[in-house]
Amino acid sequence: MIAFPTVASFETTLAALPQPDAGARDAAARRQGQLTKPPGSLGRLEDIAVFMAGWQGHERPRIARGRVVIFAGNHGVVARGVSAFPAEVTVQMVANFHAGGAAINALAAAAGLDLSVVPLDLDRPTADFTTAPAMSEAECLAALSAGAAAVGDADLLVLGEMGIGNTTPAAALAAASFGGDPADWVGPGTGVDAQGLSRKAAVVAEGLALHAEHLTSAFEILRRLGGREIAAMAGAVLAARMKGVPVVLDGFIGTAAIAPLALVNPGITAHCLAGHCSAEPGHIRLLQRLELDPILSLNMRLGEASGAAVAVQVIRAALAAHDGMATFAEAGVASA
Amino acid sequence: MIAFPTVASFETTLAALPQPDAGARDAAARRQGQLTKPPGSLGRLEDIAVFMAGWQGHERPRIARGRVVIFAGNHGVVARGVSAFPAEVTVQMVANFHAGGAAINALAAAAGLDLSVVPLDLDRPTADFTTAPAMSEAECLAALSAGAAAVGDADLLVLGEMGIGNTTPAAALAAASFGGDPADWVGPGTGVDAQGLSRKAAVVAEGLALHAEHLTSAFEILRRLGGREIAAMAGAVLAARMKGVPVVLDGFIGTAAIAPLALVNPGITAHCLAGHCSAEPGHIRLLQRLELDPILSLNMRLGEASGAAVAVQVIRAALAAHDGMATFAEAGVASA
Repeated sequence: MIAFPTVASFETTLAALPQPDAGARDAAARRQGQLTKPPGSLGRLEDIAVFMAGWQGHERPRIARGRVVIFAGNHGVVARGVSAFPAEVTVQMVANFHAGGAAINALAAAAGLDLSVVPLDLDRPTADFTTAPAMSEAECLAALSAGAAAVGDADLLVLGEMGIGNTTPAAALAAASFGGDPADWVGPGTGVDAQGLSRKAAVVAEGLALHAEHLTSAFEILRRLGGREIAAMAGAVLAARMKGVPVVLDGFIGTAAIAPLALVNPGITAHCLAGHCSAEPGHIRLLQRLELDPILSLNMRLGEASGAAVAVQVIRAALAAHDGMATFAEAGVASA
Repeated sequence: MIAFPTVASFETTLAALPQPDAGARDAAARRQGQLTKPPGSLGRLEDIAVFMAGWQGHERPRIARGRVVIFAGNHGVVARGVSAFPAEVTVQMVANFHAGGAAINALAAAAGLDLSVVPLDLDRPTADFTTAPAMSEAECLAALSAGAAAVGDADLLVLGEMGIGNTTPAAALAAASFGGDPADWVGPGTGVDAQGLSRKAAVVAEGLALHAEHLTSAFEILRRLGGREIAAMAGAVLAARMKGVPVVLDGFIGTAAIAPLALVNPGITAHCLAGHCSAEPGHIRLLQRLELDPILSLNMRLGEASGAAVAVQVIRAALAAHDGMATFAEAGVASA
C-alpha cells in the first residue's frame, strides 16, 4: 500500500512519476483509425479512449471498478466568515452521503460508480491559516496517506470533497502556486455576497503574507494553506499515478489540490482528466495553468465530485464506442 | 397519428405550437430549491430537470422510453463533389446500423436508448438543388410525415441523420433561413479539403440563386434545398411538440433542419435541447441564431445522433439528482 510516512517519501514520489503504456495507447489510436466513422469525427471521445488505454495498459480499456472518493475536512478559517454555510454542515453532509440523499449519491449511481466517503478529523478543524500553519507535518502526512489508501483497487478514480469554507484555502493554494492577486482566485463558493468575497480575498492575502517565506515546496504549501481533504486529494492523485489508475478531477478545490504538485512536477496532470469547468471563476484559470481541458462545462459549483461523476458518463460513452464499433473491414463500408 | 398530408397542415401546425405544463415546471423548480445543495449549484442540471418536467408534465420527469431515430437520405448534389465519401456509404452505413457496428449503436446502448433507423428512398436521391428543387411537394410532405410517424410513444426523442453530402443542403438551409455568405455556413463535413470547401460554398450559392424568389416559406426552403432525412427531422420535431415530447438535437444538419421552421415561428425550439456543439463551424452560428445552448462541446462531427446520445447521459444525470436527492428537511442539514 502506498503511503507517505515522511516528507521525503512524498517528494521522492512526486519527482519520478511513471508514464503511460505507449504500446497500449498506440494500439488504441490505430483502432480508432479503423472504426466506421471519418477519422477524428468522435473528437474528444477518441482522445479519451486513447488516454484510458495508455493508463490502463489495455487497447480496449474499461471501467469495471470505478470509484468516487469524497474526502471531508473542516477549516479553522471558517471563523473568518468566508462561507455562506455554518461549519456544522460538513458533518451533516457526510451523514447525508451515508444516508444516500446527496447529489453525489444519485450521480455516482447513475454513472455506475461506487462511492466511498472519508471524513478526516471533522471534530478537529485545521488551524486558521491567517494565524498559523493549517496543519502540522504529521497531520499533513496523515492526510496525504489517507488519500493514497483510498485508491484501493479502483480502475478509475473520481475525486471529490466536502468541507465548508474550503474554496478559501483552495484560492490560497492557487495563488501560492501560480501567483496573481488573491482577488483573481477567490469566488462566491456556495454563495457569499460581494462583502464576503472581499473578505475571502483579504483572508487569502493575510495567509500568503504570514507564510510567505515558507511557501517553497509543494508539501509546505499544502500543509500551511491547505486542509485535510485537500491534502488527501493530492495524496490520492499521486498514489493513483504510481498504480497507473486514471483520475477524474472535479472542481476548483480538487484542481487547486494538485497545483502545488504541478509547480514541482508539471507532469503530475498526465493521468488526470478534468471532469468539468465549474462556475467558480478561479477554476478556468487553474485549468489553463495546468493545461487541462475540461470535459464538461455545465455551470455546476457543488463540489462533492458531482461534475466529475457526470463526466464519467462521457468517458463511458467514449469506451463504449471504442470497444463496440465495427471496423470498416468488418462492416464492409467504403472508407474515404 | 400526426402527419402532414398537405402543405397547409404543416403550416397550421407550425403556427400554433403548444406550450409546456407550467404547473409541473414550477413544482420542479421549487423542488430544486429544497434539495441538499446550495441553490443553483447543480447549474445546467437543474435547468434540464425543470425543462423536462415542463414538457413531460410531471414534477419528477423520467426517461423510460427514450428513443434515437436516425433518418437516412441520399442527395443528388453529391454529383457536384461535395463529400469525401461516395454516396454508396449511406446505404452501407444503414446496414452497419442494423448490424450494430456504428458509433450510434454503442452510444445509444450506453445511454439506455432504443434505436430506430428510417431509410428514406435511398435508391432515389433528391434532385441536385443547383438545377431543380430537391424534392417535389409530395416527396417533401412524405418525408415530413415519415418523421412525424417515428415519434411513436417516446418520452424523449433523440434525432439523428445519415446522408452522404448532407452538410451542403444543411448549409443552404441555414443561409436561406438566416442570410449571410454561403462560405460562413459551409465546413469540412466528414473531411473535404480547402478545394472541396470552396466547391461547397459555390454550390450553396448556386442553389440560393436558382431558388431565390421561392424561398419565402419554411416548406419551400425545406423542399427546394433540403433532403428527405432533413425534412423528416423537421417533421419529427413538430410532431414531438404536438405530443409534448422533449427533443434532443444532434449536430449541424439536425439543427439546420429546424432553421426554416424557426424563421416562421421562433418558438419551435422551446421543447428542444441542443445535445452538443459540433466541430462543423456553422453549427455554433446556427445554435446562436436559434438561442440554443449546447449541453456538450466535445469536438464531435460524426452525425448519426452521436453527440445527442452522449448528451442524454447528462440529461439522465440531471433527472437522477432531481429525483433521488433528499431535501434539507429530510436530511436534517442546515440551509444557508
